[in-house]
Parts: sequence; C-alpha cells; structure tokens
Amino acid sequence: MLATTTSGNGEEGSRIGSLLNPGRMLSDGIPYPDFHEATETIRGPDDWFDFWWAKGEAYNRLGEEAVADGHLISAGEWLWHGSLSFHYAQFMSFHDPARRELGQRRKVELYNRAAPYLAPPAQRVELAFEGAVIPGFLRLPSGSTPPSGWPCAVLIGGLESTKEESLRFEEMCLRRGLATFAFDGPGQGELFFDVKLQPDFERWTAAVVDHLIDRGEVDSSRLGVLGRSLGGYYALRSAATDDRFAACVGWGFFYDMSDFDTMPATTQHGFAYVTGKPSFDAARTYLQDALSLDEVAGSLSIPTLLLNGRHDPIFPPRQMELVVRALERAPVEVVIEESGDHCAHNMGQLVRPRMVDWLATALSGE
Amino acid sequence: MLATTTSGNGEEGSRIGSLLNPGRMLSDGIPYPDFHEATETIRGPDDWFDFWWAKGEAYNRLGEEAVADGHLISAGEWLWHGSLSFHYAQFMSFHDPARRELGQRRKVELYNRAAPYLAPPAQRVELAFEGAVIPGFLRLPSGSTPPSGWPCAVLIGGLESTKEESLRFEEMCLRRGLATFAFDGPGQGELFFDVKLQPDFERWTAAVVDHLIDRGEVDSSRLGVLGRSLGGYYALRSAATDDRFAACVGWGFFYDMSDFDTMPATTQHGFAYVTGKPSFDAARTYLQDALSLDEVAGSLSIPTLLLNGRHDPIFPPRQMELVVRALERAPVEVVIEESGDHCAHNMGQLVRPRMVDWLATALSGE
Repeated sequence: MLATTTSGNGEEGSRIGSLLNPGRMLSDGIPYPDFHEATETIRGPDDWFDFWWAKGEAYNRLGEEAVADGHLISAGEWLWHGSLSFHYAQFMSFHDPARRELGQRRKVELYNRAAPYLAPPAQRVELAFEGAVIPGFLRLPSGSTPPSGWPCAVLIGGLESTKEESLRFEEMCLRRGLATFAFDGPGQGELFFDVKLQPDFERWTAAVVDHLIDRGEVDSSRLGVLGRSLGGYYALRSAATDDRFAACVGWGFFYDMSDFDTMPATTQHGFAYVTGKPSFDAARTYLQDALSLDEVAGSLSIPTLLLNGRHDPIFPPRQMELVVRALERAPVEVVIEESGDHCAHNMGQLVRPRMVDWLATALSGE
Repeated sequence: MLATTTSGNGEEGSRIGSLLNPGRMLSDGIPYPDFHEATETIRGPDDWFDFWWAKGEAYNRLGEEAVADGHLISAGEWLWHGSLSFHYAQFMSFHDPARRELGQRRKVELYNRAAPYLAPPAQRVELAFEGAVIPGFLRLPSGSTPPSGWPCAVLIGGLESTKEESLRFEEMCLRRGLATFAFDGPGQGELFFDVKLQPDFERWTAAVVDHLIDRGEVDSSRLGVLGRSLGGYYALRSAATDDRFAACVGWGFFYDMSDFDTMPATTQHGFAYVTGKPSFDAARTYLQDALSLDEVAGSLSIPTLLLNGRHDPIFPPRQMELVVRALERAPVEVVIEESGDHCAHNMGQLVRPRMVDWLATALSGE
C-alpha cells in the first residue's frame, strides 16, 4: 500500500518547487496525497525520478491486483495513475535520455494496460504514416452512437505532455457529448523515439483526420482540434491547413520562437531535446526556423478560441498578440486570464470546462 | 472570474493549518487552486468564513451563467463547487450559530439548484418522519435499470459532513453500478435545525429504507449502508438493527464516547453543538450516554467492512478494537491503514475505491 508520509523538511522540499506545477499536475489527475508527499520528501531533482518511479510501480501492483479481483474500474484508474506517475518520473530528465526513455516506455505500457478498463474505454489506434506509426486513443461518449456519429475533439499535447495525460480533460469532453482522439505527433511521447520535432506537424494531424473521417462512430463534419502549449501552436497550424476541421482551440499557445531566449531554462532544454539536434545552439536555430505561424495564420478561417494566462512565464502576452493580429480571417474569441499562469493551469476548474463548453457548442451542428 | 493568488505569507497561512484537512477537502472535491489560495491568504479563523463564502458566491454566478448559456454539465459542477464552498464557510463556526446556519442554508440551496444538472442527476427526496422531513438524494447509474433494480448504497455523513459532500464518492459508486442514496439524519445538515443528535439514528435510516424498497429503480434485496466518521457508527447501528441491509461499511467509525476527552477540542465542540444541549458538560454527558454500540453490536450479522486509519487523532485504534470484539456474529473484514489519518483521508485515492469495490462485490448478488 502506498504511504503518505507527513515527515520531511519543508525547506529542503522547496528546492524542488520549480519542478512542481501543482495546477497542472492536480488538474491532470495526480492525486493530492502523492503531490503532497513529493513536496515533503523529495530532496532535489535526483530524487525526483525515483519517487515517481516507485509510485508508478505501486499503482501498477494495485492495478494488477484489481484486474485479478475483477475490480475493473479501479484497475483502470490505478493503472492510469501509474502511467501518469511514470510520466512525471521522466518529466524533467532531459539531461538523462536513458531515464527519459524508461519513463516514457513504462508510461505507455501502463496506459495501454489501463485503456480497456477506463470508463468509457480508450481504443488504441496505430496509424502507419511515412514509415512511422502514429499512436492514438479514441474514446466515445456513453450511450448509442448518433446516426451521423459523434462530434469529435482531436487533442494535441505539448512539449512534454502526451496522449496519456489528457484523460481527465477527455472525460470533460465525453460528458458533454464529444468523442476524443488524443495522439502523439513528432517529438512527442512514444513517437519521439522514431520522429523528432518537425516543422509540419499538421501533416500528422491530417493523417489522424484521414482515419477519423472513415470511422462510422465519428461525424466527419464535426471535427474540432484542441492543443495545449506547444500543442496549441500545432492545433492552430493544423486548423489553418486542413479544411476538415470545424472549430479550433489554442490553449497556452505561441506564434513563433522569437521569445525563445526569455523562456525558463528547463523549457528551452525541453524544446532543444525534442529536436534531436546534436547541440543546443543547433536546436535553437532549428526551432526558430521551424516554428512560426507566418505562412499559415492568414488561412485560418474557422471559429477559434484562444486562451492564455496573463502571467505565462513561457509564452508572454506578446505571442498572443502576434497570433490575434495574424488570424485575419478566422472568427476568433480571445480569453486572457488575468490571474492565469501557463495554460492557466492554476485555475483549471474554471478554464477547462469553459474551453470544452465552447468546443461542444461550436461542434453542436446548430 | 475567480482568481488564484500566489501572494501571501506562508507563516501567516500556517495558522489555519489545523482547520485545513487537505486529504478530505480535495478528495471530496474542493479544487486545488481554492485550497492553495486558502492556505496563502487566510490569516486566521475569522477570515475563513468570508473566504469560502466569496468562493461560493463566485461559483454560484458561474453556475447561473452556465445555466443561462445552456452549458448544463458545467452548471452542475460549478453550482456544486459553490455548495461545497458554502459548506466549508460554515465548517468550523460552532461558536457562531448564525453563520453556521447561513452557510448550511446556502449550501443546500446551491446543491438543490445543481442536482438536475449533475451527471447522472440527483433526485431530491423528502421523507416525512415524525413531524420532520428527512432530505435525501437518489442517484442512479447511467443506462437502463435492470429488471430487479439497481443495488443501492445508503450513504451516511458524519458530525459535520452532509449529503452534499458525497458527490465524488457517489460517482465512484455509480461507475461501479451502485445507485446511491445520501441523506441528512438527526443533527446533520439541514435536518439539524429541526432535529438534534439522537441516540436512535437507525430509526431514521429505516425510514429511508422504507422508501427505497418501494422504488422500482432499486433492488430491495441489495441494499448496503456506508457511513463515514460519526456516520460509520450510525451505519453499524443501522445495519445491526435493520435486517433489510445486505452489507455494511464502517469508515472511520468508533464504538462509544469513552475517548471523548482525548478528542481534538474542535471535534468535542462539534459533537456538543449538534446535541443542541445548553452547556458543554450537559452535551458531554448526553453523548456518552447516547452513543454506544453496546446493545446492538451483537446483532450485526451481515458482511461488514471496517476501515480506519492507524493515526486517527479523533477515534483511536482502541475504538476499532472495541467494535471488532463486539461484532460477534458478523463476517467482518478489518482494514487498518498504517499510514492513515482520520478516515484515511490522506490516502483517499487508495481507500475510497477499495471500499466501493468491496460494497459492489458484496451487493453483486452472486
């Protein structure tokens, strides 16, 4: 049984404060007792991996016991808690690719194991694309499929967020009658090992859409795309270049890499890592060349919601302004959360339902 | 829009540490940003009411806007967040009955308003009983009702927990195919204003069972009772005296009031308050006389799960031992969480699914 200790030294614990983003972690599903134990017991970045790895294995044991006992709802939840723990184990290990791969692989294993037990289940889909495989998960709302299929939200993760992290967000969509398809693209999650960050992420999104429009459970006329952080940028690119989307949400996005040098160092190193380039400088140059909405923003024409936090330390308000100015054709709704941090993760209970409501309305077909 | 401040003084904030039980609050559904803001901004017990009251009104506004906009899932969630905020506003105001009543009344108003928008909805039931009205909420799992009806968990709150607080727990039951009926009995929630704590809570539970067995949606042969804290004691009493229950869970319970004098002062005053007696000493005497399993424990004969935390500061392990010794006839499963606090709230993600799985299995009819 996992234990929550109340020992530990607050001052020591505060050294890892910069690694912990409680708004994000708790909104995405890390149990508060685990978060609290992390703040109380982890002494520094070196402990980080071991702490979350141990949590992951403990949840894995609980999950497997629950499978054996026929407690399948708990099995799905605990195996997914394990997956998310492994995600955080590797979270900041950009300096240690071996550990990073260990964590990513184990995260994927446990999520795959959890998928059929989630409520509603997640159906793994593997799409062959240009010699690689795009991994994704389709989830459908409870109840019988409407004659024309469900409206569907294509969900795109960010720099170090992956398809396994969006479960709670998916549940918000599912309760509002939206199917969800979350996937890893270039540089993300399990696809990173085969394909690093690319300038044309939208082609991978298009491969996902090619698949979805062939599925009877999904209404091909009611597809939306929502991306978070770097994924917000990808969502805007995808919506601007693929006329099969009916609505777009950019959540904590940017316009280009012109503010790269003022980003926090961990974010810079994360960006450099996913390029796979041999040096930081080479990565920086590549990113500034590869990531820009310059050539596509003017083409975006569908209803688009933009949501950023005013106090985002990664993508400053200037990036939001660049996007708004460039989206000349799209009917855009802009929300700047005055108290919000990156992705307004510090007010998830307010902004997440709002985005999903907006998307459900935009895809309602009315 | 609610704001999460990151200002504030940790040392000042720590003065209210003893009021905050993060395990309980977050497991029951208080959003982490609100909890965090409380720790950062509340300077002492006097600020407590105002802080949570303001949160409650802010969520009420969001919820009503969502109703008006047709975003009914968000409406239900936000109105319920408001209800829970009002609950915590009055939480420790035993010294200020006027505030306590304000908070209780407003909590009830917002929960009633949220009820039809919850997923699945909560159906308010009012049962006339001996000149009073027992208020409760029935929730049914999604999908069509089985021919013999759903198995149903009757949920009993504790000293200052009420039917509005069990929503997340209900959702765990509902996902596992259990209907839920949560109600306020003597001394609890809205019934407190008409009926104070009674020695025979089980008669009120029986009135609930009278109602449930007449409902076609519920399988009268598969009723369970689960109570938390003082409600754990009530659940044991109810299961021992009403042969219509098929399974019982005592969660953070006690045997009698022989350890009253070593309880935390706030708990003692809470117990005294709900008796309605004119003095603390009168209340103490009344409680020690009124609350004991002596005369009923030997009658309990149905499968029973007992779950307590080893480090419960309110009901010490001795109370657990007294119960185990007295339940001579019942097949009892005992779980003592070695790292657990009161109700093992500090490990909610582990113990709550376990209890619900146990109850679902016990009521599976197999």
